[in-house]
Amino acid sequence: MDTRSFALSYAAENLESSLLFLKELIKIPSVSTESERSKDVSNCANFIAHRLTSIGIEHVQVYETAKHPIVYGDHLHAGSTQPTILIYGHYDVQPVDPLELWKNPPFEPTRIGDNLFARGSSDMKGQLVACLSAVDAIMKTGKFPVNIKFIIEGEEEIGSPSIKKFLQEKKDLLISDVVLNPDTGMIAADIPTIVYGLRGLAYFEIRVFGPDHDLHSGAYGGVVHNPAQVLCDLVSGMHDADGRVTLPGFYDRVLPLSDQERKELARLNMDDNYYSNQTGTSGVWGEKGYSSIERISCRPTLEVNGFLSGFTSQGAKTIIPSKAMAKISTRLVPNQKPEEVNIQLVSYLEKHAPSTVRWEVELISDGFPSISDINLPETQALASALEMIWGVKPVYKREGGSVPVTADIQQILGIDSVLTGFGLPDDNIHSPNEKLHLPTWQKGILALVHFFFNASKTIKLDIK
Amino acid sequence: MDTRSFALSYAAENLESSLLFLKELIKIPSVSTESERSKDVSNCANFIAHRLTSIGIEHVQVYETAKHPIVYGDHLHAGSTQPTILIYGHYDVQPVDPLELWKNPPFEPTRIGDNLFARGSSDMKGQLVACLSAVDAIMKTGKFPVNIKFIIEGEEEIGSPSIKKFLQEKKDLLISDVVLNPDTGMIAADIPTIVYGLRGLAYFEIRVFGPDHDLHSGAYGGVVHNPAQVLCDLVSGMHDADGRVTLPGFYDRVLPLSDQERKELARLNMDDNYYSNQTGTSGVWGEKGYSSIERISCRPTLEVNGFLSGFTSQGAKTIIPSKAMAKISTRLVPNQKPEEVNIQLVSYLEKHAPSTVRWEVELISDGFPSISDINLPETQALASALEMIWGVKPVYKREGGSVPVTADIQQILGIDSVLTGFGLPDDNIHSPNEKLHLPTWQKGILALVHFFFNASKTIKLDIK
Repeated sequence: MDTRSFALSYAAENLESSLLFLKELIKIPSVSTESERSKDVSNCANFIAHRLTSIGIEHVQVYETAKHPIVYGDHLHAGSTQPTILIYGHYDVQPVDPLELWKNPPFEPTRIGDNLFARGSSDMKGQLVACLSAVDAIMKTGKFPVNIKFIIEGEEEIGSPSIKKFLQEKKDLLISDVVLNPDTGMIAADIPTIVYGLRGLAYFEIRVFGPDHDLHSGAYGGVVHNPAQVLCDLVSGMHDADGRVTLPGFYDRVLPLSDQERKELARLNMDDNYYSNQTGTSGVWGEKGYSSIERISCRPTLEVNGFLSGFTSQGAKTIIPSKAMAKISTRLVPNQKPEEVNIQLVSYLEKHAPSTVRWEVELISDGFPSISDINLPETQALASALEMIWGVKPVYKREGGSVPVTADIQQILGIDSVLTGFGLPDDNIHSPNEKLHLPTWQKGILALVHFFFNASKTIKLDIK
Repeated sequence: MDTRSFALSYAAENLESSLLFLKELIKIPSVSTESERSKDVSNCANFIAHRLTSIGIEHVQVYETAKHPIVYGDHLHAGSTQPTILIYGHYDVQPVDPLELWKNPPFEPTRIGDNLFARGSSDMKGQLVACLSAVDAIMKTGKFPVNIKFIIEGEEEIGSPSIKKFLQEKKDLLISDVVLNPDTGMIAADIPTIVYGLRGLAYFEIRVFGPDHDLHSGAYGGVVHNPAQVLCDLVSGMHDADGRVTLPGFYDRVLPLSDQERKELARLNMDDNYYSNQTGTSGVWGEKGYSSIERISCRPTLEVNGFLSGFTSQGAKTIIPSKAMAKISTRLVPNQKPEEVNIQLVSYLEKHAPSTVRWEVELISDGFPSISDINLPETQALASALEMIWGVKPVYKREGGSVPVTADIQQILGIDSVLTGFGLPDDNIHSPNEKLHLPTWQKGILALVHFFFNASKTIKLDIK
């Protein structure tokens, strides 16, 4: 047997002890958003740090931040010719409310058939333990084939507010070739999935001011430019007849879809019906010339998140409102930049807002989009590892949402992320009765063992 | 001296006793919207009825309605060759809150210089007493030159909900040639004003439904037709580039402005600056081809009264809202009909709402527009009377707002109204510190004496 086979055997033989550790980890209620849980959150960090040390990870340190600690550790003995993989994870979890909808106590892991029910079982304590178990199996049975570093934070579920500063301060410590982030999931239990792109965000509030007080619509209807109507005009004008966003220069930096990407996305079988059924709509809508999955993953969009003006209670009040407000957000794709979209929006408003009203716009929240080269050797190493276990090529996917840490790492450290994970669409993450499908999770551990061997430069992958 | 001169002298000599009666009337807090005041409201009706009887009006009766009583009375001794004038008034008043902003108790009439401060002093107990004093002066000094009837209601400030039924039931009793409604005001103390038209109303709520629940804007931005955006598109499309309403057939029944009307309106000196200053806007806006005062008074308009969708609190929430709602109202001019505008709006939505959303529309409130022939002999009689007192021709005006009773009377009885009044723009009606300018009010009493004589068919007016 070679070292890979020894590691795979060890991992397979120790699945129950991996599960035991996962259960212990789950029992710590590390809800990052609840201040009364902050002791639990920091206990959880220490528990992780202890585990890292006990499996042979070095330089383990719990770094304090403004809020919850970040755990660091590394194992850098594969030599400078081997790649360094930065393993990202988070040990914090979502709140559990509404508690009454849970069938079992959320922090008492309960195994029912193939599933383990508990908060954090899928998102992402299970994924984190899969990584640690794979690493442990390799460490126990031979020399680690690549260099590895860990950053495991406790603020992912509250938007990772401390990680930017940490990345900036620890830039040298964190230098790596690629990030492995096992915080996404699979599109189905038989389809391993690699996420290589995420959209960014630029979220705005637009306020339009008309008359200096609400007016009687009879006495003034006909001489005042109604700010609600003006804002409707402005919002309406932000898309053209083809569903394209009209902010000047909005698409200038957008990377076009490659044929390879379109082919991969088409394999996902997420067609228009899929999205109509998921959303309860009578049909999909979006930019012409792109399929639904292409629009969600690879094209930027602009959404109205909220709109408020005037009288909105029951009945009739005949006023011309003095002001109107809209929350507008754009989902961005590489290489768009939030601050440039801000400028584009201001320039759109400067051009189209009439002189009869006053307006202001505020950038409330932002995040960069990210994309990784799917031809990176480490991505191919992961793809091959997944195929070895599942017997099918993984699908490559770009997510419509944002994982701010991915863009932060790309911006600050200049390192691409490859995202995967062994959670399933029905895992109820962020909801009551979160669960982990144990057979899939166990496959994941073995796939990660393969990944670390595949990532070694001395391995020549036979990529089909 | 002729009978007119005797009446004018009597009125002038009895101004203080008119004022005394007005003060007594004001002291009754007849706030129609407050149920705890309903006793006061009905006391006020009886007080009015008593006064009518004591000045010689016959058949005085207090009619109960579902809410507050309507007072009727008549004096029909001028003969069938003389016109019958139906005098409309209301004895109810607006609430007084915020009470703390009143400088004097609202129901204790307080004379300061030329003004009498109290709730109802201008709107419209003062105007009602002006009418009664003019009638009293003529009755006391000779034969009344025309036939008169009174209807004085107690629900004007709550939208006259009982008057329709009353008009329908008492159709025969109320037959007249014209209505004198002294419930409007003057545009300035030196410019007597006749209102001969009012706009109608059709007030709608439009609801647009998209996905069956709020969606994550990252996960679904690009495949869902956002209902807030759809409603913005729909609202935006309700006006064209020239500020015209695009509902199909909206202008079909609109009476064009006559040259005479445009000339009269231009005399009002209510230009664009006037309206910008009044509303605190940087400029006016509206349908091309019409002046501000023309648009407000003689052209129909469409307003957004309210708009609500999605997340509207502080900060950012990245959702695609499941629904959106707008309150939309149209101000109508003769001969538009609310129920036809309802059909036009539905037909607009049927044509322009995309199939990706579901929508519904509800007509919440409506009222017909009204217009009177300014060449009616009684209108000319009033114009001449006003000129006799103020020394200038009155201006003719159409109001942008709605006085439902005027349209109800026109619809049910087929009788035109001529509206006037001796309140001033700074009278604070519906606000704290309502007041009546006594010198103007006293001129009004004398003008009304002239009016009743001028309205007699045996008088040949020398209209300039």
